[in-house]
Amino acid sequence: MIVTPVILSGGSGTRLWPLSRTGRPKQLLRLTGEETMLQLTALRTPADAGFASPLVVANAAHAEMIEAQLAEAGVSDARIILEPAGRNTAPAIAAAALALDREAVMLVMPSDHVINDVAAFRAAVDAALPLVADGWLATFGITPDGPETGYGYIKRGDELAPGVARVERFVEKPDRATAEAYLTEGGYSWNGGIFLFSAGAYLDALRTHAPEILDAVTRSMDKAERRGQLIYPDTHDFAASPSQAVDYAVMEKADRVAVAPVEMGWSDVGSWDALHTISPRDEGQNVQLGEVVAIDTTGCMIRSEGPLVAAVGVKDLIVIATSDAVLILPRGSSQEVKRAVEALQKQGHVTLTRPL
Amino acid sequence: MIVTPVILSGGSGTRLWPLSRTGRPKQLLRLTGEETMLQLTALRTPADAGFASPLVVANAAHAEMIEAQLAEAGVSDARIILEPAGRNTAPAIAAAALALDREAVMLVMPSDHVINDVAAFRAAVDAALPLVADGWLATFGITPDGPETGYGYIKRGDELAPGVARVERFVEKPDRATAEAYLTEGGYSWNGGIFLFSAGAYLDALRTHAPEILDAVTRSMDKAERRGQLIYPDTHDFAASPSQAVDYAVMEKADRVAVAPVEMGWSDVGSWDALHTISPRDEGQNVQLGEVVAIDTTGCMIRSEGPLVAAVGVKDLIVIATSDAVLILPRGSSQEVKRAVEALQKQGHVTLTRPL
Repeated sequence: MIVTPVILSGGSGTRLWPLSRTGRPKQLLRLTGEETMLQLTALRTPADAGFASPLVVANAAHAEMIEAQLAEAGVSDARIILEPAGRNTAPAIAAAALALDREAVMLVMPSDHVINDVAAFRAAVDAALPLVADGWLATFGITPDGPETGYGYIKRGDELAPGVARVERFVEKPDRATAEAYLTEGGYSWNGGIFLFSAGAYLDALRTHAPEILDAVTRSMDKAERRGQLIYPDTHDFAASPSQAVDYAVMEKADRVAVAPVEMGWSDVGSWDALHTISPRDEGQNVQLGEVVAIDTTGCMIRSEGPLVAAVGVKDLIVIATSDAVLILPRGSSQEVKRAVEALQKQGHVTLTRPL
Repeated sequence: MIVTPVILSGGSGTRLWPLSRTGRPKQLLRLTGEETMLQLTALRTPADAGFASPLVVANAAHAEMIEAQLAEAGVSDARIILEPAGRNTAPAIAAAALALDREAVMLVMPSDHVINDVAAFRAAVDAALPLVADGWLATFGITPDGPETGYGYIKRGDELAPGVARVERFVEKPDRATAEAYLTEGGYSWNGGIFLFSAGAYLDALRTHAPEILDAVTRSMDKAERRGQLIYPDTHDFAASPSQAVDYAVMEKADRVAVAPVEMGWSDVGSWDALHTISPRDEGQNVQLGEVVAIDTTGCMIRSEGPLVAAVGVKDLIVIATSDAVLILPRGSSQEVKRAVEALQKQGHVTLTRPL
């Protein structure tokens, strides 16, 4: 069964400010090495491993960068659906499903996650495929490595096939105590936002559980403009869709939902701390990137795309420098970046939006 | 008696890197407010307080900036001796003395010190003047406010006149224990490098104690080129002078040396920590200058001339940002900036020399 990678590139978060900005979101950054997160995602499911050409759903404002990055990565056959407005993941996936045959199997992936063990990922996809062929909606459950409160959890039910269980229930981001109880109890996975289902099964579930989304997106795709590999859904109709995450609109409500638990070195790189955790460190436990001089410095992540950064005698700091902004905070508190961003939003500060 | 301010602007230190550079040394920076250190120095001894036009001795490389800054401060009548090479303070003061009448009283001041209580400073000058008229060499002794190991000390001897004592001896920078002993013992001042003497008395002392300096500088000044208010000593002869500090070449050796102890809010602003100490702080004990967003941040000095700096949840850091370099170190360790500078010197890094 040929699987079509559907890459969701709608995000425009600021959790990795000052590197990420509205004009250059996280998925378009070279966070972990030579490739951008989008490129890494596209390269995870190549044609020579039996995958179909990818379908990317992206913010229309990023069209040029997306095309350029895919071309740079040698992915020349991708089709790109350019969303005229962000309506969260359920409508984005609906647009992709409508651009495919009903029988097509969609592997829906955020464009800004890291997966170190691609073989494990593909094995999990293979494990879920027979159920998907039978009409199930599948999700991949990340094996938790701590009582993380930033992710949704999936309670696994009965085994449906080797490596695949029925989803007993989805749980919203828990508090710390609840997350710890889940780990003690066992049988929980993190919801990593990666899905496998046929286009038809998804559209049918949408018809049942979120018909307004299906109607709006169907109208917008019926009127879509096509230019080469670019697809422009109708602006007015697309914008009329409710803005909902696929988890909420479909997965939590549908009947036949399966989870394939997988340990694959996954990270959503949702913070500077998360990036520090997955990055190779020197003997001082520092991550250094760009023009950095670190002396007597330990446990720091120091990156610069702009000015030289010289650190002497500092410990456990995150320092991110660009040509127009420098962020400094203690490691372990990188969720606090949002407070800096909020302060800058009040000023309408240009470093939040300006591409670099 | 009319006093001629002699402003020494030869320094090109890197203790305040990345703001100070070879191309833009500390005295040319706006460190404490609207005026640069050079401007503050020139404005300390204005014509309307009875001072003669100042004589500035400066690095030829900084000629334009010096002229522009003096003009900006409304000091249009300064003569400027442009040193073709740095030979420390004894030759610089010799050049100034040779540009003046023997009877002229020279008030020699580094161009990069802060003096908050100018009235106290002028009173100390007045106290020393009668002795200077009598041929004494005078220095000003800063009242120590701690066992500082970064300064030379002056042991005061018998009182010569109200507010002026004979110098018993000069002491090189002591170690911590010695500095503490001086404070306990009493009778010591810091050597702040500010001097008062007649041109003739200085040249005579130089003839006795450092004749090679006098000879070389005399030759270079005899051949000096003059263009308007600019004086260019002969390069070859000036460079032939031994490189010596006035303390070592003259003051420590001469016979009739007096010290006027003075409490005048003096700082040599010799480090970022020193600047933090003398700068006004907000309620979080932070010093912020330039485009800075500081959240939950205490005890920090954060300055930017370049990128926005956002700090969240950090404590007791010094952060200095320019368009091409950012320095980060803990407060209390700003002497360690030299280690960053040394590392950059090995690379021949442009941020050490590039003017901003």
